[in-house]
Amino acid sequence: MEDYHKPDQQTVQALRNIANRLRINSIKATTAAGSGHPTSCCSVAEIMSVLFFNTMKFRPDDPKNPNNDRFILSKGHAAPVLFSVWMEIGYLKESELMSMCQVDSMLEGHPTPKQQFVDVATGSLGQGLGVACGMAYTAKYFDKSSYRVYCLLGDGEMSEGAVWEAMAFASYYQLDNLLAILDVNRLGQSDPAPLQHHVEKYQRRCEAFGWHAIIVDGHSVEELCKALSQPRHQPIAIIAKTIKGKGIPVAEDKMGWHGKVLSKDIAESVTRELQSRILSCSKRMYPASPIEDAPPVSLRNVRMPSAPNYKPGEKIATCKAYGVALAKLGRYNERLVAMDVDTKNFTFSEIFKNEHPNRFIECFSAEQNMVSVATGCAARDRNIVFASGLATFFSRAYDQLRMAAISESNIILCGSHCGLSAGEFGPAHMGLEDVAIFRALQTSTIFYPSDGVSTEKAVELAANTKGLCYIRTIRPETSIIYNSNEDLHVGQLKVVYQSKDDHVTVIAAGLTLHEALAAAEQLKKERIHIRVIDPFTVKPLDAKTIIDHVRATRGRVITVEDHYYEGGLGDAVCSAIVNETSFTLQRLAVAHVPRSGKMSELLKIYAIDRDSITQTVRKMLSSSANAK
Amino acid sequence: MEDYHKPDQQTVQALRNIANRLRINSIKATTAAGSGHPTSCCSVAEIMSVLFFNTMKFRPDDPKNPNNDRFILSKGHAAPVLFSVWMEIGYLKESELMSMCQVDSMLEGHPTPKQQFVDVATGSLGQGLGVACGMAYTAKYFDKSSYRVYCLLGDGEMSEGAVWEAMAFASYYQLDNLLAILDVNRLGQSDPAPLQHHVEKYQRRCEAFGWHAIIVDGHSVEELCKALSQPRHQPIAIIAKTIKGKGIPVAEDKMGWHGKVLSKDIAESVTRELQSRILSCSKRMYPASPIEDAPPVSLRNVRMPSAPNYKPGEKIATCKAYGVALAKLGRYNERLVAMDVDTKNFTFSEIFKNEHPNRFIECFSAEQNMVSVATGCAARDRNIVFASGLATFFSRAYDQLRMAAISESNIILCGSHCGLSAGEFGPAHMGLEDVAIFRALQTSTIFYPSDGVSTEKAVELAANTKGLCYIRTIRPETSIIYNSNEDLHVGQLKVVYQSKDDHVTVIAAGLTLHEALAAAEQLKKERIHIRVIDPFTVKPLDAKTIIDHVRATRGRVITVEDHYYEGGLGDAVCSAIVNETSFTLQRLAVAHVPRSGKMSELLKIYAIDRDSITQTVRKMLSSSANAK
Repeated sequence: MEDYHKPDQQTVQALRNIANRLRINSIKATTAAGSGHPTSCCSVAEIMSVLFFNTMKFRPDDPKNPNNDRFILSKGHAAPVLFSVWMEIGYLKESELMSMCQVDSMLEGHPTPKQQFVDVATGSLGQGLGVACGMAYTAKYFDKSSYRVYCLLGDGEMSEGAVWEAMAFASYYQLDNLLAILDVNRLGQSDPAPLQHHVEKYQRRCEAFGWHAIIVDGHSVEELCKALSQPRHQPIAIIAKTIKGKGIPVAEDKMGWHGKVLSKDIAESVTRELQSRILSCSKRMYPASPIEDAPPVSLRNVRMPSAPNYKPGEKIATCKAYGVALAKLGRYNERLVAMDVDTKNFTFSEIFKNEHPNRFIECFSAEQNMVSVATGCAARDRNIVFASGLATFFSRAYDQLRMAAISESNIILCGSHCGLSAGEFGPAHMGLEDVAIFRALQTSTIFYPSDGVSTEKAVELAANTKGLCYIRTIRPETSIIYNSNEDLHVGQLKVVYQSKDDHVTVIAAGLTLHEALAAAEQLKKERIHIRVIDPFTVKPLDAKTIIDHVRATRGRVITVEDHYYEGGLGDAVCSAIVNETSFTLQRLAVAHVPRSGKMSELLKIYAIDRDSITQTVRKMLSSSANAK
Repeated sequence: MEDYHKPDQQTVQALRNIANRLRINSIKATTAAGSGHPTSCCSVAEIMSVLFFNTMKFRPDDPKNPNNDRFILSKGHAAPVLFSVWMEIGYLKESELMSMCQVDSMLEGHPTPKQQFVDVATGSLGQGLGVACGMAYTAKYFDKSSYRVYCLLGDGEMSEGAVWEAMAFASYYQLDNLLAILDVNRLGQSDPAPLQHHVEKYQRRCEAFGWHAIIVDGHSVEELCKALSQPRHQPIAIIAKTIKGKGIPVAEDKMGWHGKVLSKDIAESVTRELQSRILSCSKRMYPASPIEDAPPVSLRNVRMPSAPNYKPGEKIATCKAYGVALAKLGRYNERLVAMDVDTKNFTFSEIFKNEHPNRFIECFSAEQNMVSVATGCAARDRNIVFASGLATFFSRAYDQLRMAAISESNIILCGSHCGLSAGEFGPAHMGLEDVAIFRALQTSTIFYPSDGVSTEKAVELAANTKGLCYIRTIRPETSIIYNSNEDLHVGQLKVVYQSKDDHVTVIAAGLTLHEALAAAEQLKKERIHIRVIDPFTVKPLDAKTIIDHVRATRGRVITVEDHYYEGGLGDAVCSAIVNETSFTLQRLAVAHVPRSGKMSELLKIYAIDRDSITQTVRKMLSSSANAK
């Protein structure tokens, strides 16, 4: 602690004054809004004061400056105290704070990127630390810069396993630029948190996970100043024992006050009392300026330097083509990074790792944390992030993906082993709901490439597409169907098989596209002509062109998908064509939880193979012939 | 350790012999299948031998007997060793084991309930311990019986946060009947696990989370016997240091062997060598018999004793009606249990808790673990389980729900605060994708009640419906629309507003149903008649009746949902009517990530309010008039 300069009394008083002003403004803002968590703000008033006005280094006029220290309010329900900080800084006006939660205010009930000083949305508990890990990893290993990352967590969210995934990640990668503060205010929403005020238990858990953990009185400005200036050799956790509702006598350390705003009367008397504690003080606190050593970064126009190197008829699994493409794209952009959850030999992200080991992050079996780390790495446009795993295990991280969408994060997820191609592994490993869950994310683009060429194009397009991109890949090898110079775009389908007089349009992707092509060859022998369409992206779906093609095949259309019926390609096509008259859609998809078996057998059992397609085509034609 | 009887040498040798036979059969079975994880089986051979033949008490002829000790193979990829155990017991034939993974075999690539001796499917890592917690909680607090619960975990899955949620839960509830064995074989799938062979780090983490943790040599039958007979005052973790691939010289402790089967040649030489280690031994090991003290339980025909006690026009939020109904149903079934994630004052499960405190489990902010605990409590039909939380936070537990579906588990989830009704809280708290994700679960039934009466009916029906039931409730009060004796059924819609000559059918549920009713009243003044339909269950959807009604309104239909466009009610209706000619569907749903604001304002902004409905109806009628 040699380099610790104890704050002088003026500084201490100034920080105390700020803390009480943060309380006052949090109370006022929540009472004005009729919504919010004043008691959760009051427990962290001193923490926020010391962090922002004594510890962190940032440019208050430029919240997104890459050199700034980062701050994540993982306990997002304390948003009003964060807003109050930025009012104290002078970035927000009082009138803005007092219109919090109104429908035209940029200040929402929880932090969202509508606020310039917020990098990622929080409010779903236990996600902030993982994001902070991604930022700290970026600072230390990619930016190699001085900025640090601070994350404030509540004790309630320490029950979320995702926090412990992040704790393990931070110590494994020695993120000594990361500091977490635990606001142990004892009380959760409807009950005390399980460890109550046993700060030593939190300390033991943090230490066991490889952190240096320091217990402090969270209302002591002096103790906070000292703890926050500890020398850093590993990630540091400040375990702050606090009182929920501190400064609001009626609510202090009492159950029943979570998320309750004070009535106007109580708010006035409490703020009057708090005001009286603010002592005159000549010192004015300013955030310290950051060291300007973060390198400039450009993520624009990431292009493949050459066309895909596949020959028509050659075979490659799209999951492997993903790894090949990613390694190639990585050669020409230093800020392209990849990560995985100990499945890199399945997803083939190991090809990228082998070529660019310094830009690959092994996240181990912690899908939630990987998505949060990805979001953190992508924040402030520092990196283009590709995160891969088995398709079905993104279901583990769905809340993190949901929050990434709210955060307006640009990250690319790649899910391999989708559908029945997981074969003998059985249903636990089959991604059969992944399209459904990604479709429901509002900022998503879903690529479903069917060969090596289109996979490479998907990787390139995804790197240049805003929002959440999902690339669905398959395990078995399939033939190259596109020329290397094929022009592929988001939201543009490809016709891969057609004649002048097609009777039915078949829409399929991935494995089932190849089944459809085989069906087309078979049917051709019977002089039945089908048109086979590759949507390339399931979202956005090229609805208009689909309708044109279906019209050209007399309204007959079949969708074939290696996915459950609900929420996938079939539902998307339904939605696109529902108002077309005289269209007839037949859908082939997986109707039940499948079982283990050889892929080819499973395709047949669950009726999404070539024979099922030919039979459906024949039935469709005979029933429309009968109808005539 | 006074009560520890050291096993005699005959026993030790017999257990060693069993371990090697388990290795042999695991290798044979995986080589025969051409799939599986022989090295992950070999590291746990002694553990499985001692557990099943020296420690656990169960009836080998009756794997589902309620008195049996429970076993969960959380590292599900070691399934072949579990199957080998049941062959050793005599329950499976060798021919059955050797046809593992074939499409007509009951033995799949990972444990599934197709195997009588498996309670829940595993294979998605990190979920077994939460399920074990539910079983141990049931044993200790509901059954008050002697059976114990054993869970075998891999070291790779210790990176999953869900494991630490379960660790915290077990110690908080003092589950001294729960024992976890960690197979620390050092190697993950594509890299060593982060803590490698540092068993003392695992020990420290387990101890910090309140467990008694004992380090053993996982290949020492003696050490395992001793550790597994420790007196139990708290949950116990046996940290077993093992060698991955133990017994397969070419693979022992080597990367690159995860999930790789041995060639026939290597398999033969390895099994020959293993066979030679099996020494003749007069002792034959049998599993010990269980104490028969689990009470008989019947979960059938759970009925409300009386009709709902609401009057038409009375107002209640469906989330509150859920709590009222649950408490009422709980009065007449002792095996109805409820749980929540520290949101019981929002979901109103607190009404149940207040009335039946001994049958309520507070799971704190750990959604993944709650779903796993629910699955554990419901296993072997021991309890009817209702688990509640905010609708959107089930996204956190989606992988657990997916595995519950594969497990054929019967649990009921209730999600409150769905959609825009979260208002000022903002998008992080709005469940707008919950219907989409529950629809994609293959065993799901989705109730979307719109008033107190139908909520009560949904609770009763859900308690009697197999599979995963989801009840979607809303925060604002809405008027009672049904009579107390209304007959409501799964998959049967209700017409809540109609005339003889309706022009448009509007399908809506929850909040939007009430908006549709208000729109109907408004339009009536303009002499425009609409029919308003409450689907009651979104899945199964009453497709046939919907088509009849839409036909009666000249093919015009509007869906209005407080949900994103993708995967919800609108997609379900699309799918139902897509092949009807001359139907016109207009959909109203939320198209973007919403913002904070008053609910009424948000309904308007995102165009799912009464005015949006009336406008859409008018437009629809004028465009069809123009078309004539």
